[in-house]
Amino acid sequence: MAGTDHTKSALAAALPSGPAIILVAPQLAQNVGSVARAMANFGLAELRIVDAPGTTDDPSARAFAAGADYLLDAAVHFERLEDALADLDLVIATTARERGQAKPVDTPPEAAARLAAHVGGGGRAGVMFGRERNGLENEEVALAARVMTFPVNPAYASLNLSQAVLLVGYEWFKAATGGAAPFEMPTRSPPGSHAELVALFAHIEGELREAGFFRSPSKTASMVINLRNMIQRMEPTKQDLQTLHGVVSALVEGRPGPEGRKRTVLKPLAED
Amino acid sequence: MAGTDHTKSALAAALPSGPAIILVAPQLAQNVGSVARAMANFGLAELRIVDAPGTTDDPSARAFAAGADYLLDAAVHFERLEDALADLDLVIATTARERGQAKPVDTPPEAAARLAAHVGGGGRAGVMFGRERNGLENEEVALAARVMTFPVNPAYASLNLSQAVLLVGYEWFKAATGGAAPFEMPTRSPPGSHAELVALFAHIEGELREAGFFRSPSKTASMVINLRNMIQRMEPTKQDLQTLHGVVSALVEGRPGPEGRKRTVLKPLAED
Repeated sequence: MAGTDHTKSALAAALPSGPAIILVAPQLAQNVGSVARAMANFGLAELRIVDAPGTTDDPSARAFAAGADYLLDAAVHFERLEDALADLDLVIATTARERGQAKPVDTPPEAAARLAAHVGGGGRAGVMFGRERNGLENEEVALAARVMTFPVNPAYASLNLSQAVLLVGYEWFKAATGGAAPFEMPTRSPPGSHAELVALFAHIEGELREAGFFRSPSKTASMVINLRNMIQRMEPTKQDLQTLHGVVSALVEGRPGPEGRKRTVLKPLAED
Repeated sequence: MAGTDHTKSALAAALPSGPAIILVAPQLAQNVGSVARAMANFGLAELRIVDAPGTTDDPSARAFAAGADYLLDAAVHFERLEDALADLDLVIATTARERGQAKPVDTPPEAAARLAAHVGGGGRAGVMFGRERNGLENEEVALAARVMTFPVNPAYASLNLSQAVLLVGYEWFKAATGGAAPFEMPTRSPPGSHAELVALFAHIEGELREAGFFRSPSKTASMVINLRNMIQRMEPTKQDLQTLHGVVSALVEGRPGPEGRKRTVLKPLAED
C-alpha cells in the first residue's frame, strides 16, 4: 500500500527504540527481506540473524525488503544463538505450539506492553523467531524468559515468518506510541445553524409539494418528520446545506421530459 | 512458523464468518497468494478480486498461498468494484494516506470491533484493499462507509498488501474470539510446602557453611536472607525442590580437584 511520507522521517527518528528481532536459522532469503520491510513499518531498527550467513545480501532479500535495505545492511550475523542474546536482559521466544516448558505465555499485546515498559526503562529486549519449517528448537525456547504465541485459526496456525514479525512490530508500535491513527476525519466547515437547516427543510418540502409528492394528507406529517430526521442525521455543515439547496434546485429545473432521465452510472474502474 | 494442528479443524469450522476481503486490481499474483495465506491464518473465508483476472490461478499465487489454495479456488472475480460490493451493507476502505474525504477514520482495532459486531448481528461486511503501487483511487474510497488506516512508522508507511490484510484479519480474529493465547503455561506440580522449602534452605545453607562460603559473620544473616528470597521468587514446586536438593548434592559431591571443573557449554546450534 502506498503512503510513505519522507518528510516525516524526523518523526520516525523520534520513535522509541524497540526490541531486537532475532531470526534463528531463517531458510528463505526472501523472508529475511520481508522481515526487514515489516520492521521498517513499525520503526524496529535492530535485526540479528543466527546461523544464516549471506541471507541479507541475497538479491531476493533485497527485492522483498522493498526499500528497507538499510536494515539488511545494519543486520548483525551470529553463529550461535547464545551470542546473539548475550547483551539482552529480556528475551521472548515466539512459538506456534505448546512446548510443555514451565514458562509464562504472552499474547502479542501482553508481550508488547512488557517490551515497551522494559525498553522504556532503559532495558535491552529481543524477540526470537524460529525456522520457517519447524520454528525454534526446545533448547532455543529454553533460553528465553517468556514465550509469545499468536491467536490464530487453529486449523491454519502457520504464520509466515515476516508476518509473525509484523504482528510483533505492530503490537509493539501500538504499545509504544498509543496506536492512534496517523490521521483523522478532516475538520469540516462549521455546522449549519438551525435557521439554515429549517430553510433547507422549507426548500425541499415546498418543491415536493409542487411536485405532488405528498399524495395522502394523512401521511404528510410523518413523511415530513422522516425527511427532516434523515437530513439531520447527516449532521450537515453550512457548506453541505448550500450543496443540498443546489441539488434540490438542479433536480427541480432538470426535470426529465417524457423519455425520462438516464440513470447516472459510476465511472467504470477501467477508466481510472 | 510451524504449528498447524489439523485435528483442530472442527474448531476452525466453528469460527464466526468474517468480513469479505476485497482486493482492487492487485498487481502481483504472489501478493494474492500471500493474502490467501493471511486470511487462512485468521479464518477469513471470502476473497473477492476486482479487475485482476487470472491472478488466483497464477503459479506464484499458488506457491505463496502455502496450502491456503482453497481460498484461491473459492475467490470470486469482478470487473467492477461496485459489483464486488453490491451485497455488502458495511464496507470499510483501507488507506495509508489522508484523502480529505469527510469519512470517519478507524484504527484496525476500532474497525475490527465494528466488523465483529456487524457480522455478529447478521450483517454482511467487507474490507477493501487497493493496488500495491498507489492504493485505492479516491472514487473507490468514496464507495466505502468508513476508512481504516494503520498506525505505522510515518517514514516507512508502505505496508505490503498481504501484511495489511494480515493486520485486519488479526484484529478481527481478536475481536471475534477474545484473542486469548491458544495455550497457556502448562500446569506444574503442586507448590512445595513451607516445611519442604525450609528443608531446602537448611540443605543449601548447611553445605555452604561446610564450604566456608560465609566468610564474614557480620554479613551471614543478610546473605542467608537474600538466598532464601531468591529461592522463593522461583515459586518452586515440590518437584522443583527435589531437583534443587539433587543439584546441591551433585555440586557438593562433584567438587573439582585442583585442576578445577570445566565450564559447561551450551550445545552449539549446528548440532541441532
